[in-house]
Amino acid sequence: MDIIVVMKAGAAADDVKRVVDRVTELGLTPHPSKGEFRTIIGAIGEQALQAQQQLEQLPGVDEVMAITQPYKLASREFQEADTILDIKGIRVGGPHVNIIAGPCAIESREILFDVGQAVKDAGASILRGGAYKPRTSPYSFKGKGKEGLEILKEAGEELGMPTITEVVDPRDVEVVYEYADIFQIGARNMQNFNLLLEVGKTDKPVFIKRGLAASITDLLMSAEYVLSQGNHRVMLCERGIRTFCEETRFTLDVSAVPVIQERSHLPVFIDPSHAAGKRDLVPPLALAGIAAGAAGAIVEVHSCPERALCDGPQAVLPDNFAKLMEQIRQVAELVGHRVTLWGRPDATVRRPAGGGWAT
Amino acid sequence: MDIIVVMKAGAAADDVKRVVDRVTELGLTPHPSKGEFRTIIGAIGEQALQAQQQLEQLPGVDEVMAITQPYKLASREFQEADTILDIKGIRVGGPHVNIIAGPCAIESREILFDVGQAVKDAGASILRGGAYKPRTSPYSFKGKGKEGLEILKEAGEELGMPTITEVVDPRDVEVVYEYADIFQIGARNMQNFNLLLEVGKTDKPVFIKRGLAASITDLLMSAEYVLSQGNHRVMLCERGIRTFCEETRFTLDVSAVPVIQERSHLPVFIDPSHAAGKRDLVPPLALAGIAAGAAGAIVEVHSCPERALCDGPQAVLPDNFAKLMEQIRQVAELVGHRVTLWGRPDATVRRPAGGGWAT
Amino acid sequence: MDIIVVMKAGAAADDVKRVVDRVTELGLTPHPSKGEFRTIIGAIGEQALQAQQQLEQLPGVDEVMAITQPYKLASREFQEADTILDIKGIRVGGPHVNIIAGPCAIESREILFDVGQAVKDAGASILRGGAYKPRTSPYSFKGKGKEGLEILKEAGEELGMPTITEVVDPRDVEVVYEYADIFQIGARNMQNFNLLLEVGKTDKPVFIKRGLAASITDLLMSAEYVLSQGNHRVMLCERGIRTFCEETRFTLDVSAVPVIQERSHLPVFIDPSHAAGKRDLVPPLALAGIAAGAAGAIVEVHSCPERALCDGPQAVLPDNFAKLMEQIRQVAELVGHRVTLWGRPDATVRRPAGGGWAT
Amino acid sequence: MDIIVVMKAGAAADDVKRVVDRVTELGLTPHPSKGEFRTIIGAIGEQALQAQQQLEQLPGVDEVMAITQPYKLASREFQEADTILDIKGIRVGGPHVNIIAGPCAIESREILFDVGQAVKDAGASILRGGAYKPRTSPYSFKGKGKEGLEILKEAGEELGMPTITEVVDPRDVEVVYEYADIFQIGARNMQNFNLLLEVGKTDKPVFIKRGLAASITDLLMSAEYVLSQGNHRVMLCERGIRTFCEETRFTLDVSAVPVIQERSHLPVFIDPSHAAGKRDLVPPLALAGIAAGAAGAIVEVHSCPERALCDGPQAVLPDNFAKLMEQIRQVAELVGHRVTLWGRPDATVRRPAGGGWAT
Repeated sequence: MDIIVVMKAGAAADDVKRVVDRVTELGLTPHPSKGEFRTIIGAIGEQALQAQQQLEQLPGVDEVMAITQPYKLASREFQEADTILDIKGIRVGGPHVNIIAGPCAIESREILFDVGQAVKDAGASILRGGAYKPRTSPYSFKGKGKEGLEILKEAGEELGMPTITEVVDPRDVEVVYEYADIFQIGARNMQNFNLLLEVGKTDKPVFIKRGLAASITDLLMSAEYVLSQGNHRVMLCERGIRTFCEETRFTLDVSAVPVIQERSHLPVFIDPSHAAGKRDLVPPLALAGIAAGAAGAIVEVHSCPERALCDGPQAVLPDNFAKLMEQIRQVAELVGHRVTLWGRPDATVRRPAGGGWAT
Repeated sequence: MDIIVVMKAGAAADDVKRVVDRVTELGLTPHPSKGEFRTIIGAIGEQALQAQQQLEQLPGVDEVMAITQPYKLASREFQEADTILDIKGIRVGGPHVNIIAGPCAIESREILFDVGQAVKDAGASILRGGAYKPRTSPYSFKGKGKEGLEILKEAGEELGMPTITEVVDPRDVEVVYEYADIFQIGARNMQNFNLLLEVGKTDKPVFIKRGLAASITDLLMSAEYVLSQGNHRVMLCERGIRTFCEETRFTLDVSAVPVIQERSHLPVFIDPSHAAGKRDLVPPLALAGIAAGAAGAIVEVHSCPERALCDGPQAVLPDNFAKLMEQIRQVAELVGHRVTLWGRPDATVRRPAGGGWAT
Repeated sequence: MDIIVVMKAGAAADDVKRVVDRVTELGLTPHPSKGEFRTIIGAIGEQALQAQQQLEQLPGVDEVMAITQPYKLASREFQEADTILDIKGIRVGGPHVNIIAGPCAIESREILFDVGQAVKDAGASILRGGAYKPRTSPYSFKGKGKEGLEILKEAGEELGMPTITEVVDPRDVEVVYEYADIFQIGARNMQNFNLLLEVGKTDKPVFIKRGLAASITDLLMSAEYVLSQGNHRVMLCERGIRTFCEETRFTLDVSAVPVIQERSHLPVFIDPSHAAGKRDLVPPLALAGIAAGAAGAIVEVHSCPERALCDGPQAVLPDNFAKLMEQIRQVAELVGHRVTLWGRPDATVRRPAGGGWAT
Repeated sequence: MDIIVVMKAGAAADDVKRVVDRVTELGLTPHPSKGEFRTIIGAIGEQALQAQQQLEQLPGVDEVMAITQPYKLASREFQEADTILDIKGIRVGGPHVNIIAGPCAIESREILFDVGQAVKDAGASILRGGAYKPRTSPYSFKGKGKEGLEILKEAGEELGMPTITEVVDPRDVEVVYEYADIFQIGARNMQNFNLLLEVGKTDKPVFIKRGLAASITDLLMSAEYVLSQGNHRVMLCERGIRTFCEETRFTLDVSAVPVIQERSHLPVFIDPSHAAGKRDLVPPLALAGIAAGAAGAIVEVHSCPERALCDGPQAVLPDNFAKLMEQIRQVAELVGHRVTLWGRPDATVRRPAGGGWAT
């Protein structure tokens, strides 16, 4: 938690003194060093980053630069080894690649069981399905709520798969906790800080999607919210950012995968479905993410997408999903990872140093 | 609520029939028209936009285009005249320009009263102050909560100014309702749909800030959430979007002001403070927004910004705020608007047709 | 080349007539169709897109929408089969994956020969090296010019590899033509239309990099400039776009690969080096691009990057490049492609329908 | 030209020594300062910024930060007073506000003379008209070339107005020099460095538009290219950047005006026409730019925009332009500027300290 205060060239001695005094007053340790032209003052301490805005307003200060990242528990410095979660016997993170699949929204018992069976057969290890859907329009289908959660729980139990579902309101954390195995925090709620605090108080895994305009630091700070409450079971997900490109719904920032892996020990997934918005693009983007080293992908699958109540155009058909799983499996191995296939013993694999790539 | 289904050149008659049937099944009225090369099918009905995703997946369909906007109650078509709110006798919208001012966060009774008196004397008509602060870092100051609300209420009453404060959690709507006059929905909560629904159920004005990556349509859809619950007292605010520019904290999209005014009857403010992130930029951006026709600005003012617990670098000093108010007053008049100055009778003004500009 | 003029609901018959007349006057064939509420007028003809701006200004017109893309020769409609180039016996495009490698700039004969030998041994099929470097600063190293070209030619001949180098000025097209095998048009010159016209008049392949803020349509229109002059040997390259993300130099838009492949028959490469700006990110991004189906990658390799005069931080070391080549080879095969390895017979491979993915 | 090399916490003494040696070898003066946990090494010298990429690759280095900006001649540090150009007796920059107006392209003698007379009567001081038009499509109207230049020169002489026209090719610099008074460098050529060098070798003013994805530093570096050749007559122009917003053609970054003014002595204009893409938005954006302190605006005006061969939808009609000029004049005065009205004596005005704003 260090910052550097760069004084203007030729700043007065008084200005330097004022900064040093203020750094001390703020509970930080000042480390001034007088150069030929400029004085530079290091400031070290827990609250250094919080002091940045105040220090940059003092007279004679040119710039205040942060040297360390603002997140702590989420950082590689804090924990060097990859976090590996155990979710009902499924291992997530490190060399383990998991594919989360299922329909966008839980529309009916029948569809969820159908799709669930298909994705399980193809090798998916976690079942997804939305009961509370955040929709841009107040007039769109917003999910079946608790009824959907009941169907999800039943499907998960019958198929023997852990389940994930989105929670959008702090008031729903309790009920979602009761029915699902993993909390999903959607892109639009990535900075719903009270929601993060609530799921942080539970002991179930939290899957945080990157916001449309969130930097990687922002995403890791949201993880920090959960971690700071004592819940260390956090997974991250790159799902496309908003850029000028209109050709896809969002722009999948595939480089977020290795960048996050360098900075954090948390597993990072990709969501090719929401990034693409179009099913033909899902396989190439899914493979791109796995090739870049992702800990898995979350893929929307639907047995009758042209009647889906939500995001049908991006849902993959079960048959194509099975073919995609096979390719994912092979690409994962090429980068030193291994896909957790449902129901098959998970051989111990080790990610080679350097993440499997030749750096 | 119209959409146009454009069939591929040379699409089979069967494909066309399937689309027409599906349009009917979805409760819409189809209007096919066979061109020389292509068939185009208009589809009209309340749920047309909801049908878009399903129709674009049918065989032979090239593209489905929306002709109408997805928002209804927020649109100029729904209400041609500008919405003019009456907030404790202050008129907002139409030709009335209001400046909302105060500190970023309510830090102490003393600072809020000091700053409040200064901005009132300078002509601000509404008092701002944050009690619940959404902060990127879990380790930053997050506001004084209910204690802050009490100070705000007291200050508003003593100064005779309506107050505005941010609400970040549906669970806080009740308490904020009790203490403040206007709900502020921050940029990071613009798509916190449950929060929008909750404030939509009240009868107090809602001030919605545009999200960092929100299109203007997204913003108007968030307004629609509030309006659809029966609360018609909505104000909008452009506060800067996230772009590649690093020179300012965000990029103030000043064109959002006239674009929103063309599409919607709701008043649109600008927030120069958060866009700039730096006090020197606040006056030029505030004037730019007023010159572009904004219904007002929300400006952070602090009497001792280098000790502010939040966003000090962008807070304007009281003296400079007074000078800025004078310039705002003059620029507003040049575009046919009039600033509501606290405590002075508000002469009836009319915005000339075309918003005061020579189009 | 079709457009649709959507009239406002309730537009006057006169307005409709005026549009129809104008469409005719502009040399297009109008196809009006009167719906219950709106009239829609299709307009077909070579110059339809050029007419768009004029038509949208006529009274009663709500919107003018393009149904077809503005590019023609670059489109899949124009040529369904993948373009496969033959460059000195190397086949590029279709199922053939080629890796272009070498230093950013040609700094000396020695370095180019060293690096060239290394990348050839590793399997690269084309040698890169810059003689004219566009640099943001007028004070940076701008390349060795003609002297660099001479070294490049010599190296290409000795190694038996085709060469590629950037051309930045229409006045240099002649000299670059003489010395190199492929013209590279850099991101900053993607819309230097006169330069595109000049290389379009030659018979050597042109490798066009996507601009920092160019849409995919913009990129294909730049290809169209070259194609329209009679030069059909065009290759495209995604190299990262400018977004709000500061964690990488640019954001590699990996979805551009499948999107372009759907719309165009031209081969599309990726440039992981410039997107990343950092060598550790080059392998994951290169593999991501190949997994997404790219026709190849252009990779910067340097034997002593910390002394490179340009972009050293993103240059991969020769040893690591060799390991990366091996992974690229395997990932390519998984998606039905085959890497052209220098000096080995190129077995005939066929890309499976659907690009090798399970769509 | 200073940089700071921040060593990793606990970096070895050898690593520090290696950096210090390398800094010296690169011709810079090292200023190491050993803190409790980290060592920081300042490096000062002309080539410091060029050394950044090399130093950041050395072992033990955490980060290399630039403290100074990469431009020199364009900076406020180099020249504190505003640059004021004299263009045929018209003063540009400082407190002088100039409106450049005319049609997008020179289509005919008649239209240019008509529009020219109208904008002169309204108070515009400089006449614009394009002879070489960079167009996204090879099939669009690309201007009349030299014939257009001849018409422009004639119009400028008859009306007594200086003229501005775009140059897109280094080979055209000579002919444009002969016929026009100001070189315009368009957004797409802002980093056409050879073109910048060519106009930098002349003695005529250069008006550089910001690129679609250019940072403010990029823009000032392009100015530096011209300045470094000895041509000090440079004007800058913000014309909208590419963002995710689809509601306007580009997003006018109005904050670029005060940001550039703080960093550079060069006059900065705004182009509301290209940013908006729609004539109704031109007046509010023009006024916003002037209110933010711009040195002027460049506005497209056409007498018959629905027949314009280029960008008709954004052209303002002559009558509306006259009304806009009147508003511009008043807003300019409010911020301490004065519009140069054609043909009227230019009273000496002084911009108040702080740019006319209350900072």
